[in-house]
Amino acid sequence: MQEIISHIKSERLARVLSIQSTALKAIHDFMYENKVLQAMPIILSPITDPLSHSVYDATVEYCGQRLKLTKSMLMHKQITLMNGGIDKVYFMSPNVRLEMQETKNSGRHLIEFTQVDIEFKGASKHDFMDFIDRMIAYVIKEVIKKCSDDLAYFGRTLSVPKIPLKRYESKELKDKYGKDFERIVSMREKEPFWILDHCREFYDREDKEKRGYYHNYDLVWPEGYGEALSGGEREYEHDDIVRKMVERNMDLTPYKEYLILAKEKHIPRTVGGGLGIERMIRYLTGQKHVKDVTIFPRVPGEKIIF
Amino acid sequence: MQEIISHIKSERLARVLSIQSTALKAIHDFMYENKVLQAMPIILSPITDPLSHSVYDATVEYCGQRLKLTKSMLMHKQITLMNGGIDKVYFMSPNVRLEMQETKNSGRHLIEFTQVDIEFKGASKHDFMDFIDRMIAYVIKEVIKKCSDDLAYFGRTLSVPKIPLKRYESKELKDKYGKDFERIVSMREKEPFWILDHCREFYDREDKEKRGYYHNYDLVWPEGYGEALSGGEREYEHDDIVRKMVERNMDLTPYKEYLILAKEKHIPRTVGGGLGIERMIRYLTGQKHVKDVTIFPRVPGEKIIF
Repeated sequence: MQEIISHIKSERLARVLSIQSTALKAIHDFMYENKVLQAMPIILSPITDPLSHSVYDATVEYCGQRLKLTKSMLMHKQITLMNGGIDKVYFMSPNVRLEMQETKNSGRHLIEFTQVDIEFKGASKHDFMDFIDRMIAYVIKEVIKKCSDDLAYFGRTLSVPKIPLKRYESKELKDKYGKDFERIVSMREKEPFWILDHCREFYDREDKEKRGYYHNYDLVWPEGYGEALSGGEREYEHDDIVRKMVERNMDLTPYKEYLILAKEKHIPRTVGGGLGIERMIRYLTGQKHVKDVTIFPRVPGEKIIF
Repeated sequence: MQEIISHIKSERLARVLSIQSTALKAIHDFMYENKVLQAMPIILSPITDPLSHSVYDATVEYCGQRLKLTKSMLMHKQITLMNGGIDKVYFMSPNVRLEMQETKNSGRHLIEFTQVDIEFKGASKHDFMDFIDRMIAYVIKEVIKKCSDDLAYFGRTLSVPKIPLKRYESKELKDKYGKDFERIVSMREKEPFWILDHCREFYDREDKEKRGYYHNYDLVWPEGYGEALSGGEREYEHDDIVRKMVERNMDLTPYKEYLILAKEKHIPRTVGGGLGIERMIRYLTGQKHVKDVTIFPRVPGEKIIF
């Protein structure tokens, strides 16, 4: 109890929120400037992102229907872009992921967090990465300009990264550094960078000519801060989606209506990604754990007081 | 299924999102301009707003703890303002309220929605209402300026309201119009207005000299669109909070830690309120039901497809 009171009353937290407010304002401004529409997130749905790692089940029952707490807006972004008048959309999306306790000390996991979940229609992964490059550079520039006192408090020196940010292929990094390559390269780099091509959820697009190559990416913070954003071009054709769901041993039953949309060719070709807010603020402020940049800590396995 | 596909592909929805993006941008700009810090919402907590009407229970279990889905950030806003460096805060807060089916046709209820949940420290209800007056006028001005095409599509004529907005006392309206006064006055008025003094949740401040008078308010949209914002000055002293919880037959057990904060005088004197985004967009666009301004309808008692 004394620990949470001290945390909430700390000068550190006030400084964190000052930087966070500036960063969020920069994101909203950048989105509006680039005509990316802001839509409202949803918390409950019959379908949500299956993720590529295991978490505990989080569901509620309402009027005879079992609803999942959303883990990302992935399919909902695709469905939103079915609208002919909407080409670019973003959600400030709080996600609940009831993580196993093993992630407690990763420094990067919380059981709930917020991501800026973005999706573009008819664009390529390079278009999307270029957009994120400019957004990240803009956010850092604004924080440097408007929060110099706060950064000084944290003893944090930031510089606006040169864009385009570096883009690495995962297979090359794996050959060079072994399977822990993301962490190792994150420790070595001085500016945010991309790693392309990861085998994960069904919805990230696999190359049709070159099976086993995925048109997706992670943006990674430097100095060991790890993953910033995860995204990719999406599967949107019915047969590809079904094949990849089956490969991943998924139960197709809850996806019935989603698969009908794909079958009837309503789902457009899209690309996107989700940027974790708390992880970004952790990088900007140079904190040890994401819990240090939240008001109400939500560390896997730890008791929640407020 | 055909109905939801047509809804999502409708020109109406694209126009709604255009107006919504402009309104949200105006809110974020106004907050930043007025130094109201943006903090991230939480979805799960041992405690949440008890509300003043009944809804179905929404909880999940995690690591032996039963967590409620947040119905507002009320107590979390008070706790945030314990920080000496934070005087004004807002959350874009998605709330889950598993409403009874009776509210299905109210036009104003969804089982999840987003509110801008705002709280100021050391300010009075008049300070807060003045702030909201200016914010509402600014949002409407921006929408008129930037979304004239969209407003024309909806055949909607808006004008910037004269501020300060009218302020009515609930007892006077009740004497004049009977117990359905809020709906009746909402139908009669042409501009948003306030109704002061409502007996409801424990946390809205009751006058110490004049028991039965509450320093709270609703902002109401005109033309029959009903409640826009609900808020008030808050109880922050331990004995007042306990007395009012007991009067409302509340189980005090889950509030143990919150009551310790009050007992130890950590909770500051605050004032605030929550403005419903979907209800605001419904008013701005002149739609019949809040579901018409959401991408993924969440009508009480209706099956959810996506």
